[in-house]
Amino acid sequence: MKSNLEIAQEADLQPIDDIASSLGLLPEEVEPYGRYKAKITLSVLERLSDRPEGKVICVAGVTPTKAGEGKTTTAVGLTQGLGHIGKNPVLCLREPSLGPVFGMKGGAAGGGYTQVVPMEDLNLHFTGDIHAISAANNLLAAMLDASILHGNVHKIDALQVSWRRAVDINDRALRQITIAQGGRANGYPRETGFDITAASEVMAITAVARDLQDLRRRLGAITVAHSFDGGKPVTAEDLGAAGAMAVLLKDAIKPNLIQTLEGQPCLMHCGPFANIAHGNSSLIADLMGMRLGDYVITESGFGSDMGMEKFFDIVCRVGGLVPSAVVVVCTIRALKHHAGLEDPNADRPLARAALETGANNMRRHIAIVKEFGLPCVVAINRRPGDTNEEVEIARRLALEFGADGAEVNEGYERGGEGAAALARAVVEAAEKPSNFGLIYRDEDPIIDKISAVARRVYGASDVYLYPEAEKKVAQYTRDGLGNLPICMAKTQYSLSADPQLLNAPENFTLPVRDIRAYTGAGWLVPLCGDIMQMPGLGKTPAAFDVDLEADGRIVGLF
Amino acid sequence: MKSNLEIAQEADLQPIDDIASSLGLLPEEVEPYGRYKAKITLSVLERLSDRPEGKVICVAGVTPTKAGEGKTTTAVGLTQGLGHIGKNPVLCLREPSLGPVFGMKGGAAGGGYTQVVPMEDLNLHFTGDIHAISAANNLLAAMLDASILHGNVHKIDALQVSWRRAVDINDRALRQITIAQGGRANGYPRETGFDITAASEVMAITAVARDLQDLRRRLGAITVAHSFDGGKPVTAEDLGAAGAMAVLLKDAIKPNLIQTLEGQPCLMHCGPFANIAHGNSSLIADLMGMRLGDYVITESGFGSDMGMEKFFDIVCRVGGLVPSAVVVVCTIRALKHHAGLEDPNADRPLARAALETGANNMRRHIAIVKEFGLPCVVAINRRPGDTNEEVEIARRLALEFGADGAEVNEGYERGGEGAAALARAVVEAAEKPSNFGLIYRDEDPIIDKISAVARRVYGASDVYLYPEAEKKVAQYTRDGLGNLPICMAKTQYSLSADPQLLNAPENFTLPVRDIRAYTGAGWLVPLCGDIMQMPGLGKTPAAFDVDLEADGRIVGLF
Repeated sequence: MKSNLEIAQEADLQPIDDIASSLGLLPEEVEPYGRYKAKITLSVLERLSDRPEGKVICVAGVTPTKAGEGKTTTAVGLTQGLGHIGKNPVLCLREPSLGPVFGMKGGAAGGGYTQVVPMEDLNLHFTGDIHAISAANNLLAAMLDASILHGNVHKIDALQVSWRRAVDINDRALRQITIAQGGRANGYPRETGFDITAASEVMAITAVARDLQDLRRRLGAITVAHSFDGGKPVTAEDLGAAGAMAVLLKDAIKPNLIQTLEGQPCLMHCGPFANIAHGNSSLIADLMGMRLGDYVITESGFGSDMGMEKFFDIVCRVGGLVPSAVVVVCTIRALKHHAGLEDPNADRPLARAALETGANNMRRHIAIVKEFGLPCVVAINRRPGDTNEEVEIARRLALEFGADGAEVNEGYERGGEGAAALARAVVEAAEKPSNFGLIYRDEDPIIDKISAVARRVYGASDVYLYPEAEKKVAQYTRDGLGNLPICMAKTQYSLSADPQLLNAPENFTLPVRDIRAYTGAGWLVPLCGDIMQMPGLGKTPAAFDVDLEADGRIVGLF
Repeated sequence: MKSNLEIAQEADLQPIDDIASSLGLLPEEVEPYGRYKAKITLSVLERLSDRPEGKVICVAGVTPTKAGEGKTTTAVGLTQGLGHIGKNPVLCLREPSLGPVFGMKGGAAGGGYTQVVPMEDLNLHFTGDIHAISAANNLLAAMLDASILHGNVHKIDALQVSWRRAVDINDRALRQITIAQGGRANGYPRETGFDITAASEVMAITAVARDLQDLRRRLGAITVAHSFDGGKPVTAEDLGAAGAMAVLLKDAIKPNLIQTLEGQPCLMHCGPFANIAHGNSSLIADLMGMRLGDYVITESGFGSDMGMEKFFDIVCRVGGLVPSAVVVVCTIRALKHHAGLEDPNADRPLARAALETGANNMRRHIAIVKEFGLPCVVAINRRPGDTNEEVEIARRLALEFGADGAEVNEGYERGGEGAAALARAVVEAAEKPSNFGLIYRDEDPIIDKISAVARRVYGASDVYLYPEAEKKVAQYTRDGLGNLPICMAKTQYSLSADPQLLNAPENFTLPVRDIRAYTGAGWLVPLCGDIMQMPGLGKTPAAFDVDLEADGRIVGLF
């Protein structure tokens, strides 16, 4: 079979204006970026406010391996499958970060015959949203340090600065740094660091803002530091930075329109890194998709404990969305991995036993979906080498574990036609009565919210707050931030905070080492276990393989 | 009169496809970014290689004040003026950096009725070139530090790493930092810093590369460090980063097409910061302009000692260009400033005396142009409040000092019609016989090249190399880099390296504190005096004034 890049490079794309007009968008609502990408103006939401809303389908997954289980591939496949059976879906994906593109996991365009295109562009800068977010983040940082230097009128305590800089590169050397060395002209030396841009509060704000004015207001509400004079919060508004930041984001707030290999529309916007960020596409993209399609397929990052939980408890809470069903993506490889089987091509009896053991991870994810009161369809994302027997076992177990449907997704090799059965199962599940509910209430104490997610979603038996986290709970409660939702930062490789604890761990304690307050985005970020907001490059990063051929073609992107 | 932003916001822009087709570009050579910006594919150069070349006019200036003397305004005005008198000009400008936009100097779109548009877009991210350059720069840095951590196969001496990170923000706190603190997982702690992206060698390479393959090769040739094992250079190619960097720059290398307020084409590409970088538009943009227009108006940053000298000694040397004439932009305000007159509206006898004294700065810049053997037209960029008598004195002095022409540019208030006389003078000067020559030869020793620029351009009587610079001269000569041209980094506020030394200083020594080797771009960068490659924000940065109105309109950009 051809490589992802080859398939994408050979694809016969429709002009983006055609995709837009088939969606019912007016020419003045479409801002082209090249011939195959466009931004959609926010005025669409106003114009279509009377149109009936499409059903929201969340695509989540089991606990993934490091290679990923093809969740984007399945979301694209499902969208193509829905197109194949005559529905009008709109796909909402998250924008790729350069970190994984050049790090280990690769791009975020799906794979095989279920991809969104133009694959190269969207994996490389795309329409510049993430760079704009970095710039706004870093302008605020520069203005903060300059303000401390030039008289410090806001009485910022240099030891209580919480705002960090951001860059969209996996750069471990920037996690912890000392800035402003070298004398007075360079400012007041202090320790700080860079996060990857996906984890920036500016990304979070762009993803949940309802319009430009809401964006502007939320940017102003960012807390960057506390004063040495009574520990009062200092905001981006205080520093005079929020207006310029909003101006930097005036285009980034508009969702980007691209297409699947079979011509269905995809709004790709915001939100990578469901481990250290909220990990979902933007609220605006979802709302737009609901007015433009009869099904919105929206992908949440990593397992259902990560992106999906935050999609429900944050995005649906803030945006008032009620999803209709969840797709849990699963691979035979992942199930074997959770049973500790290193070689997915091990001989049959061994592999079958591993499959049945590792399926307990899938069982837990089905249960998490049920905890939120929604129908659950398991999609077995078939990979080369998976036997008929294996996928049949996984399908049977999914139904035994309470899934409302379980289908094999063969879109990777066959495109939308290979995902038609999955599409039909999703349509059916979305018609079922459901009882969608959130895991915690706004008014629950902070610790109860953390505990609810830890117990009811992760399956923890207990939560342990480090002293720093304890202190923050007290401080935030005092500061009136107690009724914000929470956005957990946790490893994606385990239901627990320990990446080594595979499959379906029980009787574990969730350690919370610190809590950050995103007062502009409007949520609190408990940092669980060793999770870091800046990934690092390994010994052989994907960047090694990326290059230009003599004719200008790109090789090595995947 | 209306503000720059108001004029730009009210402008009636032509669709960029129309501008492109009137230039003779084919639809497949134009990649739209929104309706009023486009990238031009490099294949144009091949297709039009038989077309006669237009004349190259370099727009330089006197030594500017901190507010700038309207060099972009004049370059746009001249272009509009040439259009007004029936010529077909192509304007080549440099892309604005967010640093000055939110720092002090403001945007880079010209002013009044001589602007390029869309002004807001081009001052904010534009088509993403500068962010792409930052990303390529920083990917290399991350790969370098990761390589040191993961076994250090290239034997990089952490104390001999020359590669720095880059961000397009004025952030003084990042000038000197310690990275990789916090333990083994974060890498090997060392001192380093960020430069503003304009000063990155990646910007330099993008600006002088002839095509994608040349870009790829030059990126690989970047020296990032030396080994502890014999002090051998370690390159981006060694680190396996150059391919990924080239891929990140595949669009940034294409010039951007925009338009003047009167519909002339402008290629805006690369190159801000002629003090700490080479400060000119890209070679590709110039070459493209030469095939597309009968006059290429290309702006060099700051005074003729800065951007123009580097345009000639670097760009023209590398690209084999022979310019036809130079425009030296001058304001009454600048001349008074050089005489030490604080208040440009001082009473008449005082002002006239100051004008005549300060005109010595203009005299020197005319002489610099003559040193390169080119015709020189002085453009008095008339600003509100300048009297007829004042502009007449300046004009007369310019001619006395040997200018081939001297005209008032009233484009700011009157558009192209107000620059028609200037345009005619430039057309006339460009017909004159000239004797273009460079200031130094490739084979001259490094120290002689520095000395030639210092003496023949700046008017220095001597050059002093600090020990670090001395060491570098020896090292680079030994390493076979002796034949490279030099790209001086020096304050733009004086012909000397001391920003306090206004007007026409003589008998001064040029201090060179260090020399950096841009082995990919292919030049050496002597750092003169206190010049820093990262500006800082002042007490009241321009960002304070920038905001969004309730209706989404931008205010405060200028």
